[in-house]
Amino acid sequence: MIVVMQNGATKEQIQAVVRRVHELGFRPHLSEGQERTIIGVIGDERPIDDSVFRLMDGVEKVVRILKPYKLASRDFHPENTIVPINGVRIGDRSVVIIAGPCAVESREQILETAQAVKEAGAHILRGGAFKPRTSPYSFQGLGYKGLELLAEAKAATGLPVITEVMAPEQVPMVAEVADILQVGTRNMQNYNLLHALGALGRPVLLKRGMMSTMEELLMSAEYILSHGNYRVILCERGIRTFEPYTRNTLDISAVPVLKETTHLPVVVDPSHAAGRWEWVTSLSLAAIAAGADGLEVEVHPHPDKALSDGAQSLRPERFAEMVARARQVAEAVGRTVEG
Amino acid sequence: MIVVMQNGATKEQIQAVVRRVHELGFRPHLSEGQERTIIGVIGDERPIDDSVFRLMDGVEKVVRILKPYKLASRDFHPENTIVPINGVRIGDRSVVIIAGPCAVESREQILETAQAVKEAGAHILRGGAFKPRTSPYSFQGLGYKGLELLAEAKAATGLPVITEVMAPEQVPMVAEVADILQVGTRNMQNYNLLHALGALGRPVLLKRGMMSTMEELLMSAEYILSHGNYRVILCERGIRTFEPYTRNTLDISAVPVLKETTHLPVVVDPSHAAGRWEWVTSLSLAAIAAGADGLEVEVHPHPDKALSDGAQSLRPERFAEMVARARQVAEAVGRTVEG
Amino acid sequence: MIVVMQNGATKEQIQAVVRRVHELGFRPHLSEGQERTIIGVIGDERPIDDSVFRLMDGVEKVVRILKPYKLASRDFHPENTIVPINGVRIGDRSVVIIAGPCAVESREQILETAQAVKEAGAHILRGGAFKPRTSPYSFQGLGYKGLELLAEAKAATGLPVITEVMAPEQVPMVAEVADILQVGTRNMQNYNLLHALGALGRPVLLKRGMMSTMEELLMSAEYILSHGNYRVILCERGIRTFEPYTRNTLDISAVPVLKETTHLPVVVDPSHAAGRWEWVTSLSLAAIAAGADGLEVEVHPHPDKALSDGAQSLRPERFAEMVARARQVAEAVGRTVEG
Amino acid sequence: MIVVMQNGATKEQIQAVVRRVHELGFRPHLSEGQERTIIGVIGDERPIDDSVFRLMDGVEKVVRILKPYKLASRDFHPENTIVPINGVRIGDRSVVIIAGPCAVESREQILETAQAVKEAGAHILRGGAFKPRTSPYSFQGLGYKGLELLAEAKAATGLPVITEVMAPEQVPMVAEVADILQVGTRNMQNYNLLHALGALGRPVLLKRGMMSTMEELLMSAEYILSHGNYRVILCERGIRTFEPYTRNTLDISAVPVLKETTHLPVVVDPSHAAGRWEWVTSLSLAAIAAGADGLEVEVHPHPDKALSDGAQSLRPERFAEMVARARQVAEAVGRTVEG
Repeated sequence: MIVVMQNGATKEQIQAVVRRVHELGFRPHLSEGQERTIIGVIGDERPIDDSVFRLMDGVEKVVRILKPYKLASRDFHPENTIVPINGVRIGDRSVVIIAGPCAVESREQILETAQAVKEAGAHILRGGAFKPRTSPYSFQGLGYKGLELLAEAKAATGLPVITEVMAPEQVPMVAEVADILQVGTRNMQNYNLLHALGALGRPVLLKRGMMSTMEELLMSAEYILSHGNYRVILCERGIRTFEPYTRNTLDISAVPVLKETTHLPVVVDPSHAAGRWEWVTSLSLAAIAAGADGLEVEVHPHPDKALSDGAQSLRPERFAEMVARARQVAEAVGRTVEG
Repeated sequence: MIVVMQNGATKEQIQAVVRRVHELGFRPHLSEGQERTIIGVIGDERPIDDSVFRLMDGVEKVVRILKPYKLASRDFHPENTIVPINGVRIGDRSVVIIAGPCAVESREQILETAQAVKEAGAHILRGGAFKPRTSPYSFQGLGYKGLELLAEAKAATGLPVITEVMAPEQVPMVAEVADILQVGTRNMQNYNLLHALGALGRPVLLKRGMMSTMEELLMSAEYILSHGNYRVILCERGIRTFEPYTRNTLDISAVPVLKETTHLPVVVDPSHAAGRWEWVTSLSLAAIAAGADGLEVEVHPHPDKALSDGAQSLRPERFAEMVARARQVAEAVGRTVEG
Repeated sequence: MIVVMQNGATKEQIQAVVRRVHELGFRPHLSEGQERTIIGVIGDERPIDDSVFRLMDGVEKVVRILKPYKLASRDFHPENTIVPINGVRIGDRSVVIIAGPCAVESREQILETAQAVKEAGAHILRGGAFKPRTSPYSFQGLGYKGLELLAEAKAATGLPVITEVMAPEQVPMVAEVADILQVGTRNMQNYNLLHALGALGRPVLLKRGMMSTMEELLMSAEYILSHGNYRVILCERGIRTFEPYTRNTLDISAVPVLKETTHLPVVVDPSHAAGRWEWVTSLSLAAIAAGADGLEVEVHPHPDKALSDGAQSLRPERFAEMVARARQVAEAVGRTVEG
Repeated sequence: MIVVMQNGATKEQIQAVVRRVHELGFRPHLSEGQERTIIGVIGDERPIDDSVFRLMDGVEKVVRILKPYKLASRDFHPENTIVPINGVRIGDRSVVIIAGPCAVESREQILETAQAVKEAGAHILRGGAFKPRTSPYSFQGLGYKGLELLAEAKAATGLPVITEVMAPEQVPMVAEVADILQVGTRNMQNYNLLHALGALGRPVLLKRGMMSTMEELLMSAEYILSHGNYRVILCERGIRTFEPYTRNTLDISAVPVLKETTHLPVVVDPSHAAGRWEWVTSLSLAAIAAGADGLEVEVHPHPDKALSDGAQSLRPERFAEMVARARQVAEAVGRTVEG
């Protein structure tokens, strides 16, 4: 941490900061420049609040030097973390494809989709039972019944299953069925939920908040990791910007940036970013070319009858085409799509 | 809802949309323009998903006409809703001032602050017991102990109390102490929590998500209102933008816009928007001039010792000055600050 | 400037940075922390590019310490700059009101509006002759003819005139009529234009780019100031965010932040921020309460016939009401609206 | 255009709108819903301002139906536009690579870079002579001298040249050397410049404003096209968001969206988006996988000595690697990188 004094700060003000540094158990390091004196604060700055220095007389600003996350950092854990899910290894050389409907809507729908995405090459089945919806008037998911149907689709196809959990009290119930528990974009900073998932110790797919920086995503992962649960998969799904054409703006740069800063696997959800199925394949190929470890794609057998997200869902035959093209791009960048 | 056909859509495509409108129980209304045919869908469009039309052949886009919220709308309830809190009437002619520390830190701190803000003119005491923090290494609040201390401060000063609730399972515990239950910016779309608060039937202060639109804020309010709980206060607290100088960008326009579109009271939190105490007074005065029904301001007796948000907390003497100036501006716009 | 070395940087890497610091004529200051070594670079960092250090082996990041602007800074010039315009003093205790139509449309329109805003209490007349429009199919302004009509309105009312200049080659022509030359939001970083206005030496109103930070606004002002032309007025007019309800998001915090960081006067344009006349008065009062030195407001005698920006223009009688209310708020914060 | 009346609008108000529709030469089409009456305005809505209806009594809002651009639209021109540059065909099956330094700095630098990028597989040489810089204290480019050096590099290597033009008065001078004239992100809405380039009739590369929507980009293209100059290449280069890690956020979705909505070629600049060379290759591959027609990449032989943008410039050997990988991805998506 560096304390930058105002132009014209007095000796007394500088000395007061130096004393405060000592009081807090850190070592000060003074440096007088032409326009400003700066004081280095040596030690682990993470637990202290900027304001202990910022509010002192003569202080202009405080600059943090250390990354605020530790366990999620490549400095701490240089090797890629690999999350194994029933024989699928997320974070390894092969690119993993997760697919299925936004929401489980009926027995027929989920069984038909599960079979279709399996045949098209998906490795993991997605489907929401508990659905966070902006409007109280929209379909809110089948809840517990949806979990049962997911279990049935899993038994029928052998595909591992990922589904969203919205609140700490749902965790045990969801964990009975899910191979991966998903934290949705609106819950990335639901800390009670993150603690519950850390304690559970099962694989978690953590979606980036549509309003969150990459650093905040890593801090939320840190909540889970701090319980000793390292099976965390990060997911870029688009951020909110001023551009209205797409539902969200896919932050494709998050792929190389996160692969550099953290050891955790990074997958991309092109469907929520695009908001329209026509652009999903292009974004999927881009994600793989950029280095993503996997994709999470919405597929529905009858998108125009879907109870949610129909406009961004691929029909199974288009999804199969997408997987074939994804395989080619994966190979062009030295990876594979298994199956 | 209006379905806009592509330039060159065929008669068959248009007829198919018309049939679908009938099937869904709506009435179609066709209008042929020079470049586009458009089809009005007459009826309550709220429960249907755009994709039922958007994915049909020949359709270019779907435009919604109705506001997605009902109960929160002034169309539905033209008079101002007034939320009475122990003799304070939020949403009425007088401007209500909520003040206190970011977090309850100790018995001394909360009692000292409660006394100080009461003397300075505050009407309601704020203080967090459960604290959502970006970092797992930061102070997370005193939890249940914090609630006990708030109860003590309330008894000592007679001030009603507002405090944050982070999860549905905390609701009963928080409701024992709080006169108003606060939903924080990260939980604006925590629907399980909103349902629990709707069912509780007690006053709720709902903070706008830092990257949520005003319409989404009203939709979240609608979740609470749909349980018959109309005692909802909205709070603008700054949104996330590209500007790094302030912590968030106070969306001052939200005040007149929300006052026009909804009957619910609107208060402003200048502290989280500014991120620095130096700008809090200016933003407070601006909020009142713009028509806000109240302020929620962070005050701490020793900001440089605060465990969170010290940099944006006013000292009690500066807060007292702010209240005096707020009273003058309130009078200039035909309102009052009581006390 | 501070160079932060990577965790695990070698002695050789650190020494190489130190040597580079010396080579560039600066003084290095080494500080070894627990996790990182940091190297202070002592001297005026403004002319050097970060990459001279950032790209060296073992370097993690480079942090700038000094503000990138000098002449615009309060450090450099602690007193408020006051820009006198025909007896009106912008930046002084009184709040200055600039009003008029978006564009000069006809002789009748500009003369009628000029008379009306004068009677209502405006101090300066605005009106665009050259209009930057998003669409080539929209009205583009009357050009030179518009300048002549402005000159006529000025002669008729005695009001000083402000009008926009879009390109360096228009500067001499506009300067014949305008008392203040306005740089529009899309031209805030049109550096050829800024140089031309710096060289001219006449008062300039510089609108913040809708996509620009406050620091970039000050850097653009610095271009003009660096020619010795200190008669620069800054204007906050709303920034682009994700919120679609308003045309732009008025960054009201820019008022106290800019008043703190720079000596230049700060005015607010509530009309472009709101995009709808219904909210203009609230935003105007908020701006004055926040400490703005003036307002620039769009007024049109027949907004529904306006060739541009009709929806955000006040009718003269509403503008007169607004001025009356603005006067009350100005007095509540210790200022005045003259006239 | 659709006029949506308020809930409770009177018959008189509706009739007044209908009359205004007729007066303006359009045909009205009335549709009464349960909650709202809507009035379709049939005809080419582009030249009229929303406010002619929006400000009428009883009107709630106005919704535009037609795209505001015509000539840039695929509706108007369904085939891809191909811009031939000395044997290179931008917009065709092959992916075109533009490379070179941010700025021309010296004879040695531009000749060395030109030779290096040619050998590595670039098809067009970039290099700035006129440089828009945020700070007046930064290197501003060599100006006319830079153009001469570019001409020399072009003669030496046979590579066509692209360089930025900042103001209308520079157009003739730049046109003497440049095969493509580049409009930078800060000038996307410099309409005087766009008119000058439209009139010139030479190939233009139009960079998206860093806070401009895709629709605004197309409207700016429309300014050039409206002069009959169809040789316009669009360039996505990252937009401004709240994420600080990268310089800008590359809007990769702009590639499929623009390819769908317009016939103009679309290239991607990964360097300005990333802000750091480490991520440039990933973004380049992603751009090609997403369907881009080309790349514009910053390359510098000695990035740590560069006078601008060093941190985001690739060294020639890394650029050569990038081209090799780009070729593989291009082939995986059915395209080629020639050379």
